[in-house]
Amino acid sequence: MPQENRPRGRPRTFDADAVLAIAQDAFWRRGLAGVSLDEVSAATGVARPGLAAAFGDKRALYLRTIDAFTAQMDVAARTLMGGSRPLRVELGAFFTGAVDLYLAGDEPRGCMALCTLPVEAADDPEIRVRLGAVLNRTDALLQARFQLARARGELPARTNIAGRGALAAALLHSVAIRARAGAGRATLLAMIRAALPLLCRAD
Amino acid sequence: MPQENRPRGRPRTFDADAVLAIAQDAFWRRGLAGVSLDEVSAATGVARPGLAAAFGDKRALYLRTIDAFTAQMDVAARTLMGGSRPLRVELGAFFTGAVDLYLAGDEPRGCMALCTLPVEAADDPEIRVRLGAVLNRTDALLQARFQLARARGELPARTNIAGRGALAAALLHSVAIRARAGAGRATLLAMIRAALPLLCRAD
Repeated sequence: MPQENRPRGRPRTFDADAVLAIAQDAFWRRGLAGVSLDEVSAATGVARPGLAAAFGDKRALYLRTIDAFTAQMDVAARTLMGGSRPLRVELGAFFTGAVDLYLAGDEPRGCMALCTLPVEAADDPEIRVRLGAVLNRTDALLQARFQLARARGELPARTNIAGRGALAAALLHSVAIRARAGAGRATLLAMIRAALPLLCRAD
Repeated sequence: MPQENRPRGRPRTFDADAVLAIAQDAFWRRGLAGVSLDEVSAATGVARPGLAAAFGDKRALYLRTIDAFTAQMDVAARTLMGGSRPLRVELGAFFTGAVDLYLAGDEPRGCMALCTLPVEAADDPEIRVRLGAVLNRTDALLQARFQLARARGELPARTNIAGRGALAAALLHSVAIRARAGAGRATLLAMIRAALPLLCRAD
């Protein structure tokens, strides 16, 4: 459809991935309501009709950059927690990877999903569902890793997987917000180091 | 100052607390960028010059409602965790109280501070500091309760207070976001019940 809406003889000359990266940067910093399409247009050099034809309205563009972010997170998390190393090593790598991502860039950013979806979620049911899906995917990944640890004997058979998984997910949510509040790398890693023994204790 | 800026003979006829409550409701739902002063004006019946004279600009009004929210939270938390009951009972009351607050109202709201400050915190250094202060107060409260538990023998002398405190705070942050994502009371309470034994275990 976007193809047919473009004026004849004026092919889309912009690089969609580059536009998405610039839009993602703006939405990550200021969220959906804090960014205007005029600003995205100015930053990308693509006029608003071109943005609309390629990506839809501002909310659709925002959701597309959120999807790109969470897909990237999912791949990284699955890679880091594939089960080839001990539980504590993999959880440590998972949280350290999150800190690296949350502190990338000039300003403290935290998690794009956990720091910008919630403000929209109260009044926008679709974004609420989207936020829930982000949380569910992390929960499933962490629960699966604890289950694997229990099945392998890294954790005792009686281990309360629900409790460990909830606290491990909570630690990620907390680090996501703390990074946005300006907590530095040393502070966040110290917090993770202090919490890991409790999450992984084998007795 | 607001007194002197008012036109002569037109005393402020609105109830400031009622206006703040209405503004807080809007900001809690949609955050600073998602609410316009025109909307607050329409909802409260107070013209924009009246709002400006009494509360300053939109951001100042938002921060005032955030301060009111966090002050209320602090009082509730201190009351629930005063140390008169066992650690597990007090932590349970603390988290249950948070769930009650986060699920109050028609829509799932979560925590006003943790769900609306982060989106503004990346580009607004003052709001970043404000978010950090909110996190610090909860950390101090939880760490103090775990220290008390250790001093009293509710927890062993070797207990890693930093790790317990970080995970307990993380659980609060997580519940704050999950409530906004639509998680129901039963789900959140089950999560808390699963996590409490790990946070409070005495061995």
